[in-house]
Amino acid sequence: MRTLRRKRKPGKPSGDLPLFLDVADRIAAMIATGGYRAGQRLPSIRRLSESYRVAVATALDACTELERRGLVEAKPRSGFYVRPSRDPIRQASALGELLATGGDRGAIPFLMASGHERDMLALDTAAPDVSLTPLAEFRTVFARAIRKHPRDAAAYTFPPGHPVLRQAIARRLVDAGCSVAPDDVVVTSGASEALLLALRAVTKAEDTVAVESPTYYGMLHVMRNLGLFAAEVPTDPETGMRVDALASLLAKRRIAACFLMPNFNNPLGSRMPPENVRALVHLLADAGVPMIEDDANGELGFSAARPTAAKSYDRRGLVMLCGTVTKTLAPGCRIGWLLPGIHKAKVMDLQWTTTVGPSSPSQLAVAEYFTSSACDRHLRAFRGVVMRNMELFKRAIGRHFPPGTTVSRPSGGLVLWIGLPKGVNADRLHRAALVEKIAIMPGTLFSAEGSYDDHVRLCFAVPWSSAVEAALARLGRLCEAELERHAAAS
Amino acid sequence: MRTLRRKRKPGKPSGDLPLFLDVADRIAAMIATGGYRAGQRLPSIRRLSESYRVAVATALDACTELERRGLVEAKPRSGFYVRPSRDPIRQASALGELLATGGDRGAIPFLMASGHERDMLALDTAAPDVSLTPLAEFRTVFARAIRKHPRDAAAYTFPPGHPVLRQAIARRLVDAGCSVAPDDVVVTSGASEALLLALRAVTKAEDTVAVESPTYYGMLHVMRNLGLFAAEVPTDPETGMRVDALASLLAKRRIAACFLMPNFNNPLGSRMPPENVRALVHLLADAGVPMIEDDANGELGFSAARPTAAKSYDRRGLVMLCGTVTKTLAPGCRIGWLLPGIHKAKVMDLQWTTTVGPSSPSQLAVAEYFTSSACDRHLRAFRGVVMRNMELFKRAIGRHFPPGTTVSRPSGGLVLWIGLPKGVNADRLHRAALVEKIAIMPGTLFSAEGSYDDHVRLCFAVPWSSAVEAALARLGRLCEAELERHAAAS
Repeated sequence: MRTLRRKRKPGKPSGDLPLFLDVADRIAAMIATGGYRAGQRLPSIRRLSESYRVAVATALDACTELERRGLVEAKPRSGFYVRPSRDPIRQASALGELLATGGDRGAIPFLMASGHERDMLALDTAAPDVSLTPLAEFRTVFARAIRKHPRDAAAYTFPPGHPVLRQAIARRLVDAGCSVAPDDVVVTSGASEALLLALRAVTKAEDTVAVESPTYYGMLHVMRNLGLFAAEVPTDPETGMRVDALASLLAKRRIAACFLMPNFNNPLGSRMPPENVRALVHLLADAGVPMIEDDANGELGFSAARPTAAKSYDRRGLVMLCGTVTKTLAPGCRIGWLLPGIHKAKVMDLQWTTTVGPSSPSQLAVAEYFTSSACDRHLRAFRGVVMRNMELFKRAIGRHFPPGTTVSRPSGGLVLWIGLPKGVNADRLHRAALVEKIAIMPGTLFSAEGSYDDHVRLCFAVPWSSAVEAALARLGRLCEAELERHAAAS
Repeated sequence: MRTLRRKRKPGKPSGDLPLFLDVADRIAAMIATGGYRAGQRLPSIRRLSESYRVAVATALDACTELERRGLVEAKPRSGFYVRPSRDPIRQASALGELLATGGDRGAIPFLMASGHERDMLALDTAAPDVSLTPLAEFRTVFARAIRKHPRDAAAYTFPPGHPVLRQAIARRLVDAGCSVAPDDVVVTSGASEALLLALRAVTKAEDTVAVESPTYYGMLHVMRNLGLFAAEVPTDPETGMRVDALASLLAKRRIAACFLMPNFNNPLGSRMPPENVRALVHLLADAGVPMIEDDANGELGFSAARPTAAKSYDRRGLVMLCGTVTKTLAPGCRIGWLLPGIHKAKVMDLQWTTTVGPSSPSQLAVAEYFTSSACDRHLRAFRGVVMRNMELFKRAIGRHFPPGTTVSRPSGGLVLWIGLPKGVNADRLHRAALVEKIAIMPGTLFSAEGSYDDHVRLCFAVPWSSAVEAALARLGRLCEAELERHAAAS
C-alpha cells in the first residue's frame, strides 16, 4: 500500500526529483512559513524518516541538503537546528492588504485583523480590552469547573447546552424581566452563533430583515453572507428605532424578521423607552414577524437597574433574545445564548450542523462565574471604569477634534458614535488612523447602504492613559488635515 | 422610565392581576421548569424585589402566596425554600418524542438526545466514551494553557485561530504527508464547523455534492440544511469510493464538490489505497471540483503508520482537509481545523459570521496537548484499547446475532457497520433497542436516499464489560424477534 510520493513540478508530467530533495523542499517550506522557527531543533532523523515515510539515509540526505542551503546547521550530538533567516520572508500584512485594496466594506476579516496587529491601539472592537477583564476569576472558574465536572468537561455537551449553564442564564435573565426556564435557553458559541442560528431559523435567501439605522455591522455581515436584504428603519440617537416608521415599513413590504438592540444600540448607545419596546413587540407580534433581540449590551447600562429586555413582553414566543459573556466576562470564552422561543426545534437542528455547541469547559466555567458573587462584583467595578472612561474620552474629543464634531450620549454600552465635521470622510480617516497605529470603526460599516461616511465609532473600554489621550489628539489632527485637504480641493 | 409589568391573561385585553400574584406566577414557573430546584433557597426578599422591580412588601407577598400554594416553605431566619414537588412535572423525554414520531430521519437532535438519556448505553456516537479520554491530561493542559497565556486565554482569538495552535496542527499534519504552513490552517469549533465552512465556501443552494455511499450522516444533515443535494457514489466496503464511478458521475452532471473520508470512512472503516486517493485528487483537480476531505479518523488507523491524507496530493489548493481532536483528545474541546486551500479568504469571511472561532482556552489547551508527549502516548494506548474492543465486539456479535448478519472489516475508526439478516429493519431495531436502553445508529441515516435500512452502526469505543456483552446479546435477541415477526407476517 505504501508508495513514494514525488513532488510534481508544475508543467512537468512526472517529477523525477530525487526523493531526498523532495523531503528537503518540504522541510524548507515549513521553515519559510514558520512551521519550524529560527533556533528550533528539527525532529530527529529517525522521526523525520517516519514522518516523511523515507529511509533514515534519505532523511539524513535531506537535512544535509538543507545545511548546504544554509537553512539549518548541525550541532554535534544534538541534531539539526533552524538558522535565523538572513532574508526574512515578510509576513503578509493584513493592514498592508487593507490599505492597498482601499478598504472594501465587506472585508471584515482584513479590517479586524489590521485593527489587532502589533503596536496598534485597538479602539475598534466593542469589547473590553483584556486588562479590563477579570483575569484571576477567569482562571479560577475554569479550574473549578474542570475539577468539579471532570467528565462533563471532556464530554460532548449536545444542544441545547449544559443544564447548569442554562439554569444560570435563565436566573440571570430574571433581572431583565424575563421569566424563562432553563429549557428555553440554547447555549451558543458567542452571540455570533446565536445571531446566525436565529436568522437562519426564520429567514431564507432574498428575504428582507428590518434593522435599526445605524446597526451592528456584524449582523449586516451575517445577512450579506446568507443572501438577505436589510431595510433600515429610522432610529433616534437616544430612544432607538421609531415604532411608527417600522409600522409603515410593515404595511408596505414583507419583512421576514426585525433585528433590534433596544438596550443599547451598537453604535448609538440608545435605549428604547420600555413603552416603545412593548409597542414594538406587540406590533411585530400582530404582524407575525419574529424579532431578533441583541442583548449583548443589556448588562452594560449606566443607570443602576438592568433594563427590561424586549423578550419580557413576548407572549407568543416570537422574540429571540441573543446574549453573550463577551463584554461582561471575557471574549475568549465564546459563550453566548439564544432564547429561540417557538423556533427552538429548528434552532437546535441547525446547531447540530454548525458547532454542536460551544466548548464544554467554557460552558461549565461560565456557569461557575454566573453563580459566584464575583460576577456582579466585577460588573459593578467594570461599569465604573467604563463610565469614567467615557467621560475622559468625551472631554479629550472636545479638546482635540475640530469644531463641528458631534458625540453621542449613550445610555450604556462601550462605544461612542462620533459625527465628523463636513469634509471629513470616515473611510479616509479610518485608513489614515491605521497608518498611525490607531484602529477605529468607519461608520459606513453600520449601514447596508453605506450611509454614515461622516461617522466613526470609538470603543472606550481600554485603560485610560496618556497614550490614549495622545491617540485621540492624533485623530483630531487627522480630522483637521482632512478638513484642510477638503477646503483646498473645493 | 420604570413601568410595572403586568401579566396579560390570554383573551383579556388588560390584566388586572395584583402585582404580587404576577411575581408569584413567574417564580412558580421557574420552579416548575427546574429554574429553582427542590431543596434550594429562593433569592432573598430584597434580591427578589430588585430582580422583579417590585417593592420589598410585594416580593414578600409573592413568597407568602407561593407558601400558600405549597410550592415553598419558610425557614426561620433563613428564607424561603423550594419544596419537593408532590406531583412532579415530567420532563419531556426526547426518547418518548422520538418513539412517538416514528423516528423521522431528519430528527438528529431527538436521535442524539435520546441516545444520551440517563442509563442509556450509548453505542451510537462515533466518539470515545469519556472514560477512554485522557482526563488527567485534559485538566493539566487547560490549567497550563491559561497559566502560560492568561491574557490570550481571555481575549478574542480572531480567525484563522491562535498561531501556537495553528503551528502545532501544521506540524502534526506532516505525519499525514502534508507540508502545510501555520497560515494554511483555520481553527474551527470541531470538525462540524470545518465541514460547514468548507461546504458554504464552495457551494450554493441547489448544488449537488458527490459523497461516498454510505457516508457520514452529519454531513448529509448539514447539506440538507443548506439546500444541497447528495449524489451517492458506489463505494467499496474496504477500498472506499470507486474512482471510475466518480469519473462517470463527473462526466454526466455538474458536481459542486466531493465529500470524502479516504482514511477511514464513517461508517465503513474503509481505507482508500493511496493510488486511488491520488487518482481521485487528480480527477477532481482536472474537473476543477473541490474535495472536502474529512480526516476526523485519520489518526485512528489500526496499522502503525498514519495514512497519507488526500490533501498531501493536492497541488492546486482544491482539497479542503477537515480535522478534529474529538476522537483523539476529547469531544468537549470543540476544536477542529480546516485547511481551506485557495478558499481561505472566503472561509475566514464566513467564520466571522458563524462563531468568530472557538474558545481561546480550548485552542491554547489543544496546542499544549499537541506539543506534549502525552498526545502520542495516549493515542497509542487508546488505539490498543479500541482494537481489542473491536475484536470483542465482533466475537460477541458472532455469538449473539442470528445467521445472515455481516460485520465490516474496518482498517481504522471507532465503528462497526453491521449488515442485518433479511427481514430485520434497521429503524425498527433502532427503536426497539432504545426501549431496552441501548442506543445504536440506524443505517438509513447514512444515505440521502434512505438506503441501508438493513444496516446499523455500532461504536466500540466504550469500556468493555459484561454489561456491554449483555447489551449485544439483547440486540441479537431483538434481531431474532424481528425475524420471527417477519416470518409470521409473510
